[in-house]
Amino acid sequence: MDYVYGPGRNHLFVPGPVNIPEPVIRAMNRNNEDYRSPAIPAMTKTLLEDVKKIFKTTTGTPFMIPTTGTGAWESALTNTLSPGDRIVSFLIGQFSLLWIDQQQRLKFNVDVVESDWGQGANLDILAEKLAADHTHTIKAICIVHNETATGVTNNLSRVRKLLDHYGHPALLLVDGVSSICALDFRMDEWGVDVALTGSQKALSLPTGIGLVCASAKALEASKSAKSVRVFFDWNDYLKFYKLGTFWPYTPSIQLLYGLRAALDLIFEEGLDNVISRHSRLGKATRLAVEAWGLKNCTQKEEWFSDTVTAVLVPPYIDSTEIVRSAWKRYNLSLGLGLNKVAGKVFRIGHLGNLNELQLLGCLAGVEMILKDVGYPVKLGSGVAAACAYLQNNIPMIPSRI
Amino acid sequence: MDYVYGPGRNHLFVPGPVNIPEPVIRAMNRNNEDYRSPAIPAMTKTLLEDVKKIFKTTTGTPFMIPTTGTGAWESALTNTLSPGDRIVSFLIGQFSLLWIDQQQRLKFNVDVVESDWGQGANLDILAEKLAADHTHTIKAICIVHNETATGVTNNLSRVRKLLDHYGHPALLLVDGVSSICALDFRMDEWGVDVALTGSQKALSLPTGIGLVCASAKALEASKSAKSVRVFFDWNDYLKFYKLGTFWPYTPSIQLLYGLRAALDLIFEEGLDNVISRHSRLGKATRLAVEAWGLKNCTQKEEWFSDTVTAVLVPPYIDSTEIVRSAWKRYNLSLGLGLNKVAGKVFRIGHLGNLNELQLLGCLAGVEMILKDVGYPVKLGSGVAAACAYLQNNIPMIPSRI
Amino acid sequence: MDYVYGPGRNHLFVPGPVNIPEPVIRAMNRNNEDYRSPAIPAMTKTLLEDVKKIFKTTTGTPFMIPTTGTGAWESALTNTLSPGDRIVSFLIGQFSLLWIDQQQRLKFNVDVVESDWGQGANLDILAEKLAADHTHTIKAICIVHNETATGVTNNLSRVRKLLDHYGHPALLLVDGVSSICALDFRMDEWGVDVALTGSQKALSLPTGIGLVCASAKALEASKSAKSVRVFFDWNDYLKFYKLGTFWPYTPSIQLLYGLRAALDLIFEEGLDNVISRHSRLGKATRLAVEAWGLKNCTQKEEWFSDTVTAVLVPPYIDSTEIVRSAWKRYNLSLGLGLNKVAGKVFRIGHLGNLNELQLLGCLAGVEMILKDVGYPVKLGSGVAAACAYLQNNIPMIPSRI
Amino acid sequence: MDYVYGPGRNHLFVPGPVNIPEPVIRAMNRNNEDYRSPAIPAMTKTLLEDVKKIFKTTTGTPFMIPTTGTGAWESALTNTLSPGDRIVSFLIGQFSLLWIDQQQRLKFNVDVVESDWGQGANLDILAEKLAADHTHTIKAICIVHNETATGVTNNLSRVRKLLDHYGHPALLLVDGVSSICALDFRMDEWGVDVALTGSQKALSLPTGIGLVCASAKALEASKSAKSVRVFFDWNDYLKFYKLGTFWPYTPSIQLLYGLRAALDLIFEEGLDNVISRHSRLGKATRLAVEAWGLKNCTQKEEWFSDTVTAVLVPPYIDSTEIVRSAWKRYNLSLGLGLNKVAGKVFRIGHLGNLNELQLLGCLAGVEMILKDVGYPVKLGSGVAAACAYLQNNIPMIPSRI
Repeated sequence: MDYVYGPGRNHLFVPGPVNIPEPVIRAMNRNNEDYRSPAIPAMTKTLLEDVKKIFKTTTGTPFMIPTTGTGAWESALTNTLSPGDRIVSFLIGQFSLLWIDQQQRLKFNVDVVESDWGQGANLDILAEKLAADHTHTIKAICIVHNETATGVTNNLSRVRKLLDHYGHPALLLVDGVSSICALDFRMDEWGVDVALTGSQKALSLPTGIGLVCASAKALEASKSAKSVRVFFDWNDYLKFYKLGTFWPYTPSIQLLYGLRAALDLIFEEGLDNVISRHSRLGKATRLAVEAWGLKNCTQKEEWFSDTVTAVLVPPYIDSTEIVRSAWKRYNLSLGLGLNKVAGKVFRIGHLGNLNELQLLGCLAGVEMILKDVGYPVKLGSGVAAACAYLQNNIPMIPSRI
Repeated sequence: MDYVYGPGRNHLFVPGPVNIPEPVIRAMNRNNEDYRSPAIPAMTKTLLEDVKKIFKTTTGTPFMIPTTGTGAWESALTNTLSPGDRIVSFLIGQFSLLWIDQQQRLKFNVDVVESDWGQGANLDILAEKLAADHTHTIKAICIVHNETATGVTNNLSRVRKLLDHYGHPALLLVDGVSSICALDFRMDEWGVDVALTGSQKALSLPTGIGLVCASAKALEASKSAKSVRVFFDWNDYLKFYKLGTFWPYTPSIQLLYGLRAALDLIFEEGLDNVISRHSRLGKATRLAVEAWGLKNCTQKEEWFSDTVTAVLVPPYIDSTEIVRSAWKRYNLSLGLGLNKVAGKVFRIGHLGNLNELQLLGCLAGVEMILKDVGYPVKLGSGVAAACAYLQNNIPMIPSRI
Repeated sequence: MDYVYGPGRNHLFVPGPVNIPEPVIRAMNRNNEDYRSPAIPAMTKTLLEDVKKIFKTTTGTPFMIPTTGTGAWESALTNTLSPGDRIVSFLIGQFSLLWIDQQQRLKFNVDVVESDWGQGANLDILAEKLAADHTHTIKAICIVHNETATGVTNNLSRVRKLLDHYGHPALLLVDGVSSICALDFRMDEWGVDVALTGSQKALSLPTGIGLVCASAKALEASKSAKSVRVFFDWNDYLKFYKLGTFWPYTPSIQLLYGLRAALDLIFEEGLDNVISRHSRLGKATRLAVEAWGLKNCTQKEEWFSDTVTAVLVPPYIDSTEIVRSAWKRYNLSLGLGLNKVAGKVFRIGHLGNLNELQLLGCLAGVEMILKDVGYPVKLGSGVAAACAYLQNNIPMIPSRI
Repeated sequence: MDYVYGPGRNHLFVPGPVNIPEPVIRAMNRNNEDYRSPAIPAMTKTLLEDVKKIFKTTTGTPFMIPTTGTGAWESALTNTLSPGDRIVSFLIGQFSLLWIDQQQRLKFNVDVVESDWGQGANLDILAEKLAADHTHTIKAICIVHNETATGVTNNLSRVRKLLDHYGHPALLLVDGVSSICALDFRMDEWGVDVALTGSQKALSLPTGIGLVCASAKALEASKSAKSVRVFFDWNDYLKFYKLGTFWPYTPSIQLLYGLRAALDLIFEEGLDNVISRHSRLGKATRLAVEAWGLKNCTQKEEWFSDTVTAVLVPPYIDSTEIVRSAWKRYNLSLGLGLNKVAGKVFRIGHLGNLNELQLLGCLAGVEMILKDVGYPVKLGSGVAAACAYLQNNIPMIPSRI
């Protein structure tokens, strides 16, 4: 039943889908249930309350849609905008590119602000556009919090400040797919109108729930948004929320129980501790990359991502070979370079339910692979650099003190 | 972790989500994997080939979309039709009603043919409409194969014959949600252009895959269909099919392995034997209903459904009370009456991976509940009627002879 | 991976191993752990406390030995007795026979009191023996609480009364394999010195833990008992109990978590409610047997067992054929007749985590099988009789009211 | 349900119970079954055949006893020997000590040959004893193949040669608990009479099966062995082998399916490849220890163990602190020093279903812990040494080439 079995654990370091904790796998190990019985609504109610916490919102309205991140994007856009609406959108890597492609196909008027892959969103241009937009033709700003293809984290707080500075009413729509529940994300404080993520990312579940959270302003906008939508229509959910049955169509029973378990683990660890752990793993990875003498695809420290690191390889090496070798020889799954950076970078995902020793095993593996493909790495160098930092910073496990 | 635990097995007799076989639960009991590694495409390829078999098509193109039945509907419609297109659609119960609602909200011009709930689609009216439609304004016929709310199975073969008789080019779009893999369904033979089902129905998986299969004619139609679509766009899938990587966005690893196991079980039993088993269970249920002196919501034998039986209760009984009591006292999950038949019918789902003794336990439970709510049933009568039929018709389990 | 797959659930009605509840299967779905870490002793401590509750003892000392019921027997005997010691032991069926065989092979002087298979232990003879034993040559009374082969429950309270009446100091060793946690069992009240059961019986776990509970008097006896023992030696456990590490050798991590979950479910339902449920299922089964016109192997009502019913078949039927047909045609697992009653009885186990509708499915199946093998049963008759009783006696599920 | 949850995977590096592969966890995720149905004997038959392969015997008779290693020891001894029989037994660490304790309590006349902990069995003394034993008073040689407490592997081939050289008929009883299925073990070639292991060791299952394999000579010896035994009696098994039902008492259904899956994985990898993998992991661990400037508890290279490495710490460090810190801060489970070497060594288990990157994560963790406890380790040094060796020696994963 495994198509290509290898001994020992698979070391899963793609930036999603990520490792599922054992307690979550256990919670999902169950038969179907009638979702119209009182049991599922009772649980759903707790989920909706708790999902708000990971978005850091008290005023937002969450939707748990049986879809992927791509569907969550579509839900965010079609519920708040009308065809022809002007959107400012930032192209900084493969996933922002795909979102922009979707925006265009959904018939919005997309004002693309492009950066080099490896740079963050150009917020100076955003400032200019906002300044110039006296008539408020811009209906929404679409931005990925963390570009998974290049390991770039954008400064959302500054986006909010710019909007406020110019008193601009545009909606702020944020792709938090590889950030929410791993990076510091503050929906209410940053005035995000729609934020979204996928269950298979930092929540450490299987793929299958697109989590979308809408501000009051976004809900208001949905009343007049003319984009055609049915499956992704928030209104169908809101109707069932009022009835207390919650589901306009059949949810995955297993994923609901899985989400319940995943949230329980996150709250047991503490959301801020989860974020600190990601910060630790990100920093350790970057120290290793530096020790190897390799460059981070991310061009400035301010954009460094704590959930994924895209590593640039020297021109004489094909990064695809690294990913292939990792899987074929070491049972290690790394992320490919995508599109513009194909062959040029490989990616180490360090998000989700992951600890330091897992990462160190991965880093040791990367060192051997680098040697395999002819890069003159000093074996142990990256691990040593990471360990030197980690040994001073890993906290005790609270439940074990 | 169970919100409302009761001793023993839950007896799950809603018409979806249905019981998952243990081998399928086992197959899904796994960590995530990198879906871009060679393993997942290798498995996906076998799935796409095998999914065609359950649609009984050799020429169709299947799509396994991370969505529910509602999403599968949307995929069928938006890929083949343009806003304003005229559709003939049959309203015979809650699920056809919901599909029609979707069709209208997607801006099609829906020509609704309504029947009493409990009757099948009025194909005489279809004949009239086709006869009258010399200019071929009808672009598609939308029909549910099996209306889950009333337990009515429509005669698809006759729909095809009518289309052929009038030489009408309309697309034939079929909701096979509660039929495919349980009832006799023949995509190629009946010239169905788009057929669809959901993983949580006869395939006996969790919710999460909308399986959609398109004929060559449907694929051709998708090239000019102007409905806006991105997440549900077949074209994105086709692009990745060509690349051999298969997935435009992240699938659920667990559901893929689950589907692999589910198909293996179905083929081990034999698809035709699976269908015979459903026919046996449907017949047995109807014999029990008759023995109880109750009426089937389905008004004529030609429409009797082998996957769900909606049972009419006398006016002095609220069928909702039956469903509630089943769950609260007997750990039995029955289907509610929906919308027009709320309070008037309760439903026994008999689809998916289910055997005769499971059904008999359910029927015995229903007898006790009927007595609980004041209906003068003769205890044992339904079970006796069902057993008399089953005892003569259950085959030996092939692997155990 | 299933050697002989059949569609739907297997209906497991052998009197052990019994159905495992889903939450328990989930709890065991885990990797190994270091049993010397602080986690396992912490859990073990709660288990030992809670296991005492199912024996209804506050003063006993429990042992959770990685073995089967056969090993638990050996543990009970070798820790309390010396070779040559006189034991009074009751032979009333296959399992008491096997225990007696073990007693003899362990070199005890076994004074066997035999009854017809289908009768309980002859306590009148016990009374005589106790009366005659002025010098207290009898060191122990060995008795099964419930003989699984014939469905006979012995009156332990009367055994205690006899011992007390004669002021006899013999140890009272009780096989509670198919009783404890299902029948009314009171270790302290009845002055039982060693009681034992297996995890795969009423606790509804996999095989693998022999649960043995020793009174203070039994522990005292163990100090002078000369039977050679190492693996089964209580003293090794007691040593590690004192250290707080609890395990003299490696336990099954999975079974410990499973036992934790199993006990949680039992306490959630309430042990007395669990016992009432068994009483209900036993009674319902006997009513069905009566309605079929068949005889219970158990000859008097006072011995009727609420965990297993052995059904006598007419001489012209081979009961083995019934069991075979059940499995081959109906995916139903019934118990064979063993040894003296082979071919003459089949057994319906109704113990463990089981509810009424499961049992009714089984009873309906048995009716069809009886017809298959040529017995002129009135189909529905047994189910009707059982339902008539159950419908008046099944309580609401407390968590669902 | 986890008593002391920590984020990420637990890194399990105790020398048993070891990591269970996901496919094996999956295979065990199931309900109970009737073990008297034809299915379980059919599977058992394949297991008995395949278990012989991991012992490298074609003539031996295997027993899969529901017990632990301690029980397997008892089975080996009591089936082949009589009280008072002279045994030569080697005391070289905690587990050989415990076995000797058992031998003494089972009333054998144990001739103990003691070595320093860290040395192998003193075979020179064995030679002397054999040479002197003209009357063949020595009935058995008992020896651990691999002493788990000190990481010492004994030379079994030399033991056989000595026996042959002196034409001595003593039985050769081998504890292969931490060797079989991981180290090179050859039952037939080395003339081993009883070999045994536990399921939770190299087979990578939960605890619960004691696997014992008896040579024809051992079976012959069992006919006259006078040790009292019932639960562990081979004869009961042999009786049921002949009947084709295989089980004298209830086995764990889950462990049987688990063993089936475990053997399938081992044969897919190839037993010799499994052994090579262990050799690789052992060598890598020793290179790391050397790089850290620490000593192996094992005093000579000829005794180095490829399944467990006991590392001596400097006198100013308490090795218990290392194990505690590993668990409390790094979610890493290491083995404690036991008895004579308590506080002086910690152990790294590297057996079972484990790959190189898992080990490297552990080694990186150990480096940080060493620093935590004040040992001046050069971070990265051990990992570098291990990687330098591994990078040249890890083969491609055959299924992925």
